[in-house]
Amino acid sequence: MKVAELGEFGLVARIAKIINTSRDKSESWQKLIIGMGDDAAAWQGDNSIQLAKVDALVQGVHFQTGIMGWADLGWKALAINMSDIAAMGGLPKYALVSLAIPPDTEVDDVLALYRGMLKLAKQHGVAIIGGDTDSTPYVSITVTVLGSMGRRKNLLTRNTAQPGDLIAVTGYLGTAVAGYETLRRKLKFNNKTSAILKSAFLRPEPRIDEGQLLLKTGIKTAIDVSDGLISDLTHICKASRVSARIEAEIVPIAPEMSAAFGNKALEIALSGGEDYELLFTGKPEIIAKVKQWAACPITVIGEILPGKTCEVTVVDSTGKPLKLSKKGWEHFVSK
Amino acid sequence: MKVAELGEFGLVARIAKIINTSRDKSESWQKLIIGMGDDAAAWQGDNSIQLAKVDALVQGVHFQTGIMGWADLGWKALAINMSDIAAMGGLPKYALVSLAIPPDTEVDDVLALYRGMLKLAKQHGVAIIGGDTDSTPYVSITVTVLGSMGRRKNLLTRNTAQPGDLIAVTGYLGTAVAGYETLRRKLKFNNKTSAILKSAFLRPEPRIDEGQLLLKTGIKTAIDVSDGLISDLTHICKASRVSARIEAEIVPIAPEMSAAFGNKALEIALSGGEDYELLFTGKPEIIAKVKQWAACPITVIGEILPGKTCEVTVVDSTGKPLKLSKKGWEHFVSK
Repeated sequence: MKVAELGEFGLVARIAKIINTSRDKSESWQKLIIGMGDDAAAWQGDNSIQLAKVDALVQGVHFQTGIMGWADLGWKALAINMSDIAAMGGLPKYALVSLAIPPDTEVDDVLALYRGMLKLAKQHGVAIIGGDTDSTPYVSITVTVLGSMGRRKNLLTRNTAQPGDLIAVTGYLGTAVAGYETLRRKLKFNNKTSAILKSAFLRPEPRIDEGQLLLKTGIKTAIDVSDGLISDLTHICKASRVSARIEAEIVPIAPEMSAAFGNKALEIALSGGEDYELLFTGKPEIIAKVKQWAACPITVIGEILPGKTCEVTVVDSTGKPLKLSKKGWEHFVSK
Repeated sequence: MKVAELGEFGLVARIAKIINTSRDKSESWQKLIIGMGDDAAAWQGDNSIQLAKVDALVQGVHFQTGIMGWADLGWKALAINMSDIAAMGGLPKYALVSLAIPPDTEVDDVLALYRGMLKLAKQHGVAIIGGDTDSTPYVSITVTVLGSMGRRKNLLTRNTAQPGDLIAVTGYLGTAVAGYETLRRKLKFNNKTSAILKSAFLRPEPRIDEGQLLLKTGIKTAIDVSDGLISDLTHICKASRVSARIEAEIVPIAPEMSAAFGNKALEIALSGGEDYELLFTGKPEIIAKVKQWAACPITVIGEILPGKTCEVTVVDSTGKPLKLSKKGWEHFVSK
């Protein structure tokens, strides 16, 4: 069978299976808390839980050089991995970068990429400590971020959602894909709208502080919205063996994105990925605390239901299920 | 300026410079012991020194799929990073894998790649804890290995060589490139010779135990031979601000490689990379201890000299300098 027939998620499941079969009694495995299958891996360090995540941005798959500047590329390649550390409740500490670039790339462009990355790194006290560069026909940047839980013993995971939990999300959804469409199709909006949309796609802000807040209030379940709301909520449902219902009309959409994309805005918000907001679940009284203390908008969008079919249903304000054409972002599978 | 004009080492130096300029008083930077520029990065963890290294194998640059099987590729992608941890004196603990493959790749081939990697991981108690997969036109595998120094407070670094140190190396040199040439040019040798040469290229064994032994005996300076003997010894010389002289006729060459490659064997041994042997320096009495305790051949090949020109001179048995056509392996620069 070809990888394209199995799809990315199917392939990762097969890989995870043979890795788990190899698990033995060595110290590394004994200390491992979470391996593949959550936002980041976690293990018991000397005194504190350690975290690690790797992800790549590949030209033609995740970005086009015409749309994305070099500094944006550097920023985003780091941001997407810091976001995964945030979604576990961790603090990012160190980053390693593997850069593949064509030999005719301008040195200044490579340095701009690093400057973009360093700008974000500096904001969160992350040190870039390693890197390799290779000559390839196209650009690909792979970043590993290492993090730590500090003194906390608990983590935010995908497999702890329970029926009765409310589902909530930080910030707004769909803005990044709206920004991508704005760039790709050269759409014209007013300056403020353009800036908000483009920046959501080019310079996502990992929700580090919000991840800390979720932990502090007692939230146990979180994921970052990278594949898209429905897709990422499905990841939570499958890991937790529950189902979920979300109400379309209360999904938070930035007013500028609503105004710019009209009746397409909802579908973009439901299925568009790369917002790197935190999607989380918890008991109503805990969610209320998060809303009270958070510095960003927190919106309750639905609830976790019993149901081992692990289905995500989107309903309108009358409770009627909506049909959706697109569920999220998966590599290898043609859409 | 294009990256190809500057070369890989020049580019890495420029990148390291802007990263170091961004260094601030954040905890991560404060705890960093070694950033870019050695075999691996090192920082102070809760109780023990932590290590990390990332490196990639890219189709058409580091391997051709016709020459290298999928399981070999998995093994080697992990081995080259474990070797860097070994060259710091560390123990590898965890690995994260970022795999880029064409969508028409067979699922079984991907699983074979992971099985090759897991085989090596299991031998050294390394747990594979994360991964992402992306669809790309060609195969690229990026591995990050995390390690630890256990209770040891010292490290093996490149910048501690001193005039009067002897230069020594584990095992044999040039075997990997001889194996690559055997595979690429479909050279025919007897079965034993073919097996030794090919396996040196396809399945290098990271020198984990030897790295531990070097630390234990009091060696302070080491690097793994990935770019080639002269190139890697030059890295030590530049980092330590010293020069070096090696005697060509005592460079250790596997008897099978000598027999197979005749008068080309020496040049391959001097400039060929990817052997992943440990190259180290130390006072004669410490080197003597290493020789006594090591389970593999340890060969003294020369000595460290004063001289801030950081030059590596290769001499014949009469002390006359040899001219060499090729100094090692550097990306971007056409040879």
